[in-house]
Amino acid sequence: MKKIVVVGIGPGDEAYMTPAAREAIISSDVIIGYKTYIDLISHLITDKKVVDSGMKREIERCNLALDFAEEGAAVALVSSGDPGIYGMAGAMLEVKTQRDSKVEIEVIPGVTAVSAAAAVLGAPLMHDFAVISLSDLLTDWKVIKKRLQLAAEGDFVIALYNPKSKGRVTQIEEAREILLHYREKETPVGLVRNAKRAEEAAVVTTLKEMLQHPIDMLTVVIIGNSNTFVENGKIITPRGYQL
Amino acid sequence: MKKIVVVGIGPGDEAYMTPAAREAIISSDVIIGYKTYIDLISHLITDKKVVDSGMKREIERCNLALDFAEEGAAVALVSSGDPGIYGMAGAMLEVKTQRDSKVEIEVIPGVTAVSAAAAVLGAPLMHDFAVISLSDLLTDWKVIKKRLQLAAEGDFVIALYNPKSKGRVTQIEEAREILLHYREKETPVGLVRNAKRAEEAAVVTTLKEMLQHPIDMLTVVIIGNSNTFVENGKIITPRGYQL
Ligand SMILES: C[S@@+](CC[C@H](N)C(=O)[O-])C[C@H]1O[C@@H](n2cnc3c(N)ncnc32)[C@H](O)[C@@H]1O
Ligand SMILES: C[S@@+](CC[C@H](N)C(=O)[O-])C[C@H]1O[C@@H](n2cnc3c(N)ncnc32)[C@H](O)[C@@H]1O
Repeated sequence: MKKIVVVGIGPGDEAYMTPAAREAIISSDVIIGYKTYIDLISHLITDKKVVDSGMKREIERCNLALDFAEEGAAVALVSSGDPGIYGMAGAMLEVKTQRDSKVEIEVIPGVTAVSAAAAVLGAPLMHDFAVISLSDLLTDWKVIKKRLQLAAEGDFVIALYNPKSKGRVTQIEEAREILLHYREKETPVGLVRNAKRAEEAAVVTTLKEMLQHPIDMLTVVIIGNSNTFVENGKIITPRGYQL
Repeated sequence: MKKIVVVGIGPGDEAYMTPAAREAIISSDVIIGYKTYIDLISHLITDKKVVDSGMKREIERCNLALDFAEEGAAVALVSSGDPGIYGMAGAMLEVKTQRDSKVEIEVIPGVTAVSAAAAVLGAPLMHDFAVISLSDLLTDWKVIKKRLQLAAEGDFVIALYNPKSKGRVTQIEEAREILLHYREKETPVGLVRNAKRAEEAAVVTTLKEMLQHPIDMLTVVIIGNSNTFVENGKIITPRGYQL
């Protein structure tokens, strides 16, 4: 019985994939992942079994990983960014628990989307922040709305993952409405699509105008706190230093 | 006039430093950073000028970086983890703004402490989470307390950076008290010291017992939400999948 490594490959470009992730992929027998991510690392994959699958097949992928590992294969389960942030680490450990399996599971952290996006925008995080997924597939929208309210009230910088998909468009509008109850219309907002991968595109905008720009499932949205400002096109949230 | 690269070296072990960070360090003329971080990358530094400095000298370091860059040097300003999360990216951009300098500043994201710590613990993040620094050197303790309350009320998983130092010991006790108003005593808590670097040490405990274990400035504290559980020594926050 071999082990499963849940590998965070970072935002996309190989320059941001850690040596540990690279090594785990190269040294495994079987690689399992969502097709888009497998494509990003295809050049690292030679003579091994590759199982790629579509979106929303997370649990199927985890069960497959366990099947292979129980048969003796070293398995890499690939996740974009950091596998511990809306990635595959949790589902894999849940499935292992459910099947009461003895296979060892190791998680290899990666650069998560919000870090990649923040680097592109300047320094918008820099102070306490909240990370919220707007996907209500697995979470009640009421819970998400409450979190948006509380994070806004607490003046957290807010990072939104899964902001909008083809079939799910109103959540980002509602989120913005909630934010506008607590923050100025001119609060800086950064939209980063494909951060640190081919076709990266960043927009620096405001709460007022953010919906006039493209937002989709490949975008992270970062909303500043009450002190965040824009200078030379960069978003900066001050830490409070005396300069 | 050359540029300044603010480099996130990740949690410590080179296996978790991205190739982009490595390349930026190798190709710069001057390297500036807090002594501990310079030591972590000393083997990458050959024949270049190195300026290391003690803690709490952030602004001094940024001014030095600008001085060197304005004289034509390629400067790497080193930050642990991700420079955009309680790191050097913000201070550097603030100092550039204050000095109205034209030097270009690039931020290279890294694996942040909470991702490294989460990987060691299992999958404690996996759902919406809040990142809060307990250091009240630059932030009013009242603001921090309010954020702890709101994050607790919103059932966010909570990650605490800078939880405790030699001279600052009561904040983590107060934070725990606040959390106990909203969450069960048995809520899983993970303490990871030196995540993904030499002398890594992890403890899986509970809100009730967390203060019986060592916590210091090299520790990240992760507090589960109301659904978080422990299985086989791993902390898991379920995402909500039907298994
Ligand atoms: C299922 S989550 C996976 C997050 C991933 N595990 C991470 O740590 O980055 C997918 C969401 O992450 C964000 N995302 C992931 N990679 C991104 C990138 N390179 N640029 C912008 N957003 C990204 C988007 O909000 C997307 O909808
Ligand atoms: C000034 S902050 C720097 C954070 C860094 N920029 C990052 O993204 O990880 C210092 C705090 O980060 C946390 N930290 C940084 N590296 C860590 C590690 N390897 N293990 C555990 N905690 C760490 C600790 O809470 C520490 O007090």
